[in-house]
Amino acid sequence: MTALIHPDRLFPADPDTRAVARRLYAAIKDLPIVSPHGHTDPRWYAENRPFSDPSSMFVVPDHYIFRMLYSQGIALEDLGIRRKDGAPVESDPRAIWRRFASHYHLFRGTPTRSWLDHAFATLFDLDVRLSSTTADLYYDRIAERLATPAYLPRALFERFNIEVIATTESPLDPLASHEAIRKSGWTGRVVTAYRPDPVVDPDFEGFRDNLVAFGTLTGSDTTTWEGYLDAHMKRRAFFKSYGATSSDHGHPTAATADLARGDAEALYEKVRSGPVSAAEAELFRAQMLTEMARMSLEDGLVMQIHPGSMRNHNPHLFAQFGRDMGADIPTGTEYVRALKPLLDRFGNEPGLTIILFTLDETAYSRELAPLAGHYPALRLGPPWWFFDSVEGMKRFREQAMETAGFYNTVGFNDDTRAFPSIPARHDVARRVDCGMLAGLVTDHRIGEDEAAELAHDLTYRLVKQAYKL
Amino acid sequence: MTALIHPDRLFPADPDTRAVARRLYAAIKDLPIVSPHGHTDPRWYAENRPFSDPSSMFVVPDHYIFRMLYSQGIALEDLGIRRKDGAPVESDPRAIWRRFASHYHLFRGTPTRSWLDHAFATLFDLDVRLSSTTADLYYDRIAERLATPAYLPRALFERFNIEVIATTESPLDPLASHEAIRKSGWTGRVVTAYRPDPVVDPDFEGFRDNLVAFGTLTGSDTTTWEGYLDAHMKRRAFFKSYGATSSDHGHPTAATADLARGDAEALYEKVRSGPVSAAEAELFRAQMLTEMARMSLEDGLVMQIHPGSMRNHNPHLFAQFGRDMGADIPTGTEYVRALKPLLDRFGNEPGLTIILFTLDETAYSRELAPLAGHYPALRLGPPWWFFDSVEGMKRFREQAMETAGFYNTVGFNDDTRAFPSIPARHDVARRVDCGMLAGLVTDHRIGEDEAAELAHDLTYRLVKQAYKL
Amino acid sequence: MTALIHPDRLFPADPDTRAVARRLYAAIKDLPIVSPHGHTDPRWYAENRPFSDPSSMFVVPDHYIFRMLYSQGIALEDLGIRRKDGAPVESDPRAIWRRFASHYHLFRGTPTRSWLDHAFATLFDLDVRLSSTTADLYYDRIAERLATPAYLPRALFERFNIEVIATTESPLDPLASHEAIRKSGWTGRVVTAYRPDPVVDPDFEGFRDNLVAFGTLTGSDTTTWEGYLDAHMKRRAFFKSYGATSSDHGHPTAATADLARGDAEALYEKVRSGPVSAAEAELFRAQMLTEMARMSLEDGLVMQIHPGSMRNHNPHLFAQFGRDMGADIPTGTEYVRALKPLLDRFGNEPGLTIILFTLDETAYSRELAPLAGHYPALRLGPPWWFFDSVEGMKRFREQAMETAGFYNTVGFNDDTRAFPSIPARHDVARRVDCGMLAGLVTDHRIGEDEAAELAHDLTYRLVKQAYKL
Repeated sequence: MTALIHPDRLFPADPDTRAVARRLYAAIKDLPIVSPHGHTDPRWYAENRPFSDPSSMFVVPDHYIFRMLYSQGIALEDLGIRRKDGAPVESDPRAIWRRFASHYHLFRGTPTRSWLDHAFATLFDLDVRLSSTTADLYYDRIAERLATPAYLPRALFERFNIEVIATTESPLDPLASHEAIRKSGWTGRVVTAYRPDPVVDPDFEGFRDNLVAFGTLTGSDTTTWEGYLDAHMKRRAFFKSYGATSSDHGHPTAATADLARGDAEALYEKVRSGPVSAAEAELFRAQMLTEMARMSLEDGLVMQIHPGSMRNHNPHLFAQFGRDMGADIPTGTEYVRALKPLLDRFGNEPGLTIILFTLDETAYSRELAPLAGHYPALRLGPPWWFFDSVEGMKRFREQAMETAGFYNTVGFNDDTRAFPSIPARHDVARRVDCGMLAGLVTDHRIGEDEAAELAHDLTYRLVKQAYKL
Repeated sequence: MTALIHPDRLFPADPDTRAVARRLYAAIKDLPIVSPHGHTDPRWYAENRPFSDPSSMFVVPDHYIFRMLYSQGIALEDLGIRRKDGAPVESDPRAIWRRFASHYHLFRGTPTRSWLDHAFATLFDLDVRLSSTTADLYYDRIAERLATPAYLPRALFERFNIEVIATTESPLDPLASHEAIRKSGWTGRVVTAYRPDPVVDPDFEGFRDNLVAFGTLTGSDTTTWEGYLDAHMKRRAFFKSYGATSSDHGHPTAATADLARGDAEALYEKVRSGPVSAAEAELFRAQMLTEMARMSLEDGLVMQIHPGSMRNHNPHLFAQFGRDMGADIPTGTEYVRALKPLLDRFGNEPGLTIILFTLDETAYSRELAPLAGHYPALRLGPPWWFFDSVEGMKRFREQAMETAGFYNTVGFNDDTRAFPSIPARHDVARRVDCGMLAGLVTDHRIGEDEAAELAHDLTYRLVKQAYKL
Repeated sequence: MTALIHPDRLFPADPDTRAVARRLYAAIKDLPIVSPHGHTDPRWYAENRPFSDPSSMFVVPDHYIFRMLYSQGIALEDLGIRRKDGAPVESDPRAIWRRFASHYHLFRGTPTRSWLDHAFATLFDLDVRLSSTTADLYYDRIAERLATPAYLPRALFERFNIEVIATTESPLDPLASHEAIRKSGWTGRVVTAYRPDPVVDPDFEGFRDNLVAFGTLTGSDTTTWEGYLDAHMKRRAFFKSYGATSSDHGHPTAATADLARGDAEALYEKVRSGPVSAAEAELFRAQMLTEMARMSLEDGLVMQIHPGSMRNHNPHLFAQFGRDMGADIPTGTEYVRALKPLLDRFGNEPGLTIILFTLDETAYSRELAPLAGHYPALRLGPPWWFFDSVEGMKRFREQAMETAGFYNTVGFNDDTRAFPSIPARHDVARRVDCGMLAGLVTDHRIGEDEAAELAHDLTYRLVKQAYKL
C-alpha cells in the first residue's frame, strides 16, 4: 500500500520541470497560512471544544461531500443531515462514516479526495486508503485523536501555522465569538468580514425584519435611505474594530448601478415596504455594490464580489433541509456591462480594491483579465468554489496570467467551512502555483529567480497586501 | 514510411506517464465494444450485403469528410452526394476516391484522420499514407476485400467485438430490420432506441402527417393530448420489445416545461392543428421532455438529451441536398434554468437516468458538472459530435471530473453512421482515458490500482450500467 | 545571469517533443515575415527618420504596456501619454524609461515580456534583465543605437526580413505615405488595407462629416445610398492601386444583415441625416458587412471581420486621453446567428475569403471552427489581441484544429503598432506552432514529414494564399 500523500503530488510529470517545482515549493511550503476569506465558525476558536466525532468533523458539514453522495442516490437523511421538519435522520456517527467510506471511490479525481487524504495522513497518521474495509480503522483512529488536547480547535489553528484567518458574518451578528476570543487572551488572529447580504438582498429570507433589526442594532433610522446607509457605515466600523479588513458580497449577478439620489431613495422605500419585483430587487443589489464601493473608499475595507450562483436550485431539498445543501448551481455571468456603472464612478481609484470572483470560467480571458489588467481598483480573486481545484487553478492561471499578469491577482482563498481541510487547500494552491511557475521556467518565459519571487508573492505577500492583513 | 498507426498513439509524451498509460490500456483494449448510442443502419445487419465500394463505405455517407472537403471549395456533386432535384452527380466511385485522397492532408490533426487511418490499417492492412499517389492502391485493396465474406456487415460486427449496439429509430419506423435480425437467428445483439423528434418537434418536416400516422400505427387517438401520450407509451413498449433501453431527444435547446394539464392539452391542440409560433413549438418540445421523463420513470427507458445544434444553417445546401449535410452548427446552450422545470419534478428520482450531452463546452464546468454532481437523476454523456475527438475528450475530463467525478459519467458513445469507424472511435476513447488516468497517477492524485479500475469502468461497466445494457 | 532569450524558449518540456520542435523550427525560422494585418505607421517607411528615444519607441505607443502599468496605479501622465486638454505630462524620456523599468516585473508571464526581451536581445544586444538597476544601461544602449543608420525604419524592415507588410488606413486617408514610399524607389513592400469604420459606423466620431468628405474625395454623391456604395467601390480600387488585398472591419458585434434595397436606402438616409438609434446603427453596420462581401466578390479584396470589443469602456480615460488607451474590453460574441444573413447570400462562394477573428474564445470550438469547417467563404484568423500570446495560441489550435483543420486557418497576424516587436511576435507564433506540431508527432497523430510541411504552410504559404499576397 502506498502512502496517502506523495511528496511530489500535483507536480508536473516532466522530470526537469518537476525538479524546478520541487525547489520552488521547498522554499515556500512552510510559510504561514494567511486565510483572508472563509467560513469557519468563530465559536470553534472562542469555545475551543473538541470536535465530537469523525462524521461531524468531516462529513455532515461538508457540502462537497454530501452533494456527491446525494448525486449517486444516497439520501441526505442517511448522512445525518438535519431535516427542517425534525423527522429522524441517521444519528449514529459510525454508520454515517461507514456509508461515506464505502463510497470513497466516487471522489477519485476530485479536490475533495486530495483534501481528505491530506488531512487523514497529516493529522491522523493514516497510511492506508479509506474504503469500506478500513472504515473502522479510520473511525477509531480519528475519534481517539479528537478526544486529545492536541486536536482542540486552537491547537489545530497553531499546528496549521495560521497567521491570520477571516470568518464571515452578517451585519446583524453581534460578533460575540470574536469578542470572546479577544477576551480570552489567546493570541491566534481571527478577524471578521462584513457580509451584508441579509440586509442588502431583498430576496434574502427575512429581509424586512432584518432591516428593522439593523436599525435597532445601530441606532440608525433604517426607514430612510440615509439612515440605512448610515447603519452600514456604523456597522462596518464595528466590524473593523474586530479586525475586519474586507466586505463580501454574494450576488446572483455582477450587476452594479449608480442611481441618482432621489431614485435610490425611492427604490429603498420600495424594497423596504414591498412588494418588490425581481428587477427591483436586482437593481437594489446593484446599487448597493456601488454604495459599498463608496464606503470602502472612506473606510478602507477591501470589497469582494462573488457573483453568479443560482442558490437553492432544488426546491425539494431546500424545503426539507434549507440553504447550502449542495444545490447552488453556477450560471453564465457577464461583467463588462454589469460592472460599468460602478467602474465609471470608482474604477480609476488606486486607493480602492475590489476583488472579483467568478463561477463562469469563460470570463477569465474574455472579461476579467482585461478589466483587471486595466482598472486600478480591480484585482482578480483566486478560482472559487467548484474551481478551487487542481485543474481549476491551472485554467485560471493559463487564462488570466497573460493579460492581467500575476500582480493583479491576490493569492489564495480557502473559502472553507471545513476546518481540517485548510492546510490541504493551501498546500494544493502552493503546489499548483509552483508547478505552473516551473513550467514557465522550463520553457524559458521567466527565470527561476523570478519564479521563486513569484511563488513567495502568490503564497504570502500579495494576499497580505490585497487584503491589508 | 512509418506504419499508419503507432502502438503508442495518443498517449502522453512524458515517458513515465506513457508507461502507466500503456499498462492501463493493455488491460482494457480487448474489452468488448458496448455501443449504446449511434446511427448505423440496421439494414446492414439484417441484410448482410457487402458494402459496394470504398467511396460508398467511407466518403459519401460521412458528413465529417464531405464537410471538410466542401469547406475547401469541392462541390458535393463531385463527391457523389445525391441532389434532391435528381441532377447528375459524380457516379464513378474511383473518381470520388481519388478526389478524396488528393485532399487527405486537409484532415491532419482531425479525429477523422485518426479514425480513417485506424480502419485502413486494421481492416485493410494498408501501411502507406493515403494521398493522390496511393489512391489507387487503396481503392483496389479496399474494393477487393469488400467483396469477400470476411467484410460483410455481420462478419465485421463480430470482428469488431461488439457486444451490443444500439441504432436509433423514429416512432414511425416499423423496426422491420430489427425484426429481420431477430428472425435470422444471428446472435449479434442489435437494439433500437426511441427517437421521437418526428412526432415531438412541431418544426420537423411533416410533423402533422406524422401525428396522424402515429395514431394509425398505435391505434391511439392522437387528436387528443391523452391519446397522443398513450401512443408514446405504446410505441415505447414496442421499442422495448426490440431491445430498446433508451430514448433520444435532439432539441435546439435544453428547455423543459411542466405545464398544468389543461395548458398542455391546449398547447397540443395548437401544435396539432397549427399555425404554431416559434415560441409555442419550443414550449411543446420543452413540455415533451418532461412527459418523456415521466414515462421513463414508468417504463425504465434511459433518457438522452442532445441539445444545442442549429440544424440546416445553410439554406442553399439544404434546398439542394437535404438534411445532415454538414451544415448543423452548435449554438450557446443554457442548462441551469432550462432544465429546472423537469428537475423540479423528477430530478431527485434515483430510479430515473437522464444523460445530458452538449455542443457548448462552456457548460461542462459551469453548469453540467455541478448539476450532475448534485441531482440523482442526471448523468453526463461523453463529448459529442465535434468534441468526439482527442482534445474534446481531454477538455471534458479536465472540466467535468473535479465536480461530477467519474461516476456521474457514462463511458463512451460512438454516435456514428460510419460502420468501419466504430473500433477506431472506441479505441481513441480508451487511449485518451488511459492517458488522462495515467496523468492522475503520475501526479499522485490516484493510485495505479484505482486508475486500472477506472479504465475498466469507463470502458465497460459504466456504459452497461447507465444504459441498462 | 542568463541571457534574455533562450534558444529553446516556448518549446514543450518533454525532451523528445522538444527535439522534434527544434527540428521543425530550424527549418522555418528564417522564412521571410509576411505581415498581412497590422497598424504600423506608413510614415516610418516613407520618411525613414530615426526613432527619437527608447521610451518613444517602446513605452508611449504601446497600449499593452501602459495598460498594465495603469492597472497598478501609475498615472498615464507619468508615462508621457499626451492629454487632450494639453495639460503637462512627463516629458523626460529617461524618467519614463526608469518608471517602466522599475515595474518590469509586472509583465512576468505576459506576451509583452517575451516581445520586449526578444527586441532587447536581438536588436540591442542586451543580456541582463531590465530592472530599476539596469534602466540606465538599457536607456543608453538603445538611445545610442537608435541614432545610427542601422536603426532607421527601412534598415530595420530589411533586417527583420519582411517580405511584405500591410498597414491599415481609413477610406479618407490620402495614402500620401504609400505614395511617397512608391516614389522613393525603396524596394520594401508596404501595402495598405481598407478599413472603412469611419464611414461605415454611425457611432464613429465625426461620422456624418466623414460621409461628406468621402463624397468630396471620390466625386460620388454620398447623399444617396447608391452614391455611397459607389464611393466605396472607387476608394477600394484606389486602395488596391496601393497594393491593398484586404479590407478590415472592427465592429462591436458580428451582426450582418441583408436588407431589401428600399430598406437599405431608407436606413442609409437615416444614419446620414440622424438622429439614429443604437439598433439602427447596429443594423447599418450589419448591412455594410454584407455590402462589403458583395464588393469583395467583385474586386477580390479579402475581408477581415474583427468583432467583439467594447471600445472606450473607461469614460474618464477617454475624456482625458482619447481612443485606444487600453480600455477596450472584450464581450461575449455570437457568430452563428449573426453571420447567417451574410452567409445565406455569399457563404457558398469559393471565390470569396472572409477571415473571422474573435475576442471570445468560447466561439472557437462551438461556433467558429464548425462554421469555417463548412462554408467555403470562411477562414479563421489567428488568435487576436489579448490572445496573441503563448497560451492563447495553444488554446486556438487545441480548440479549432479538430473541426476546422489547419487549412481553414490563415497563419499569423502581428496586428501591431509596435515596430520592434514584429520579429518577436512572428517568432513566438512560429515556436508555438512548432511545439504544437511536435506534440502531434510525439503522440503519433501525424508524421514528422507532415509536421514539417504544416510548419511551412502555417508560417508562410497559407498567409500568402489567404491574403493573396
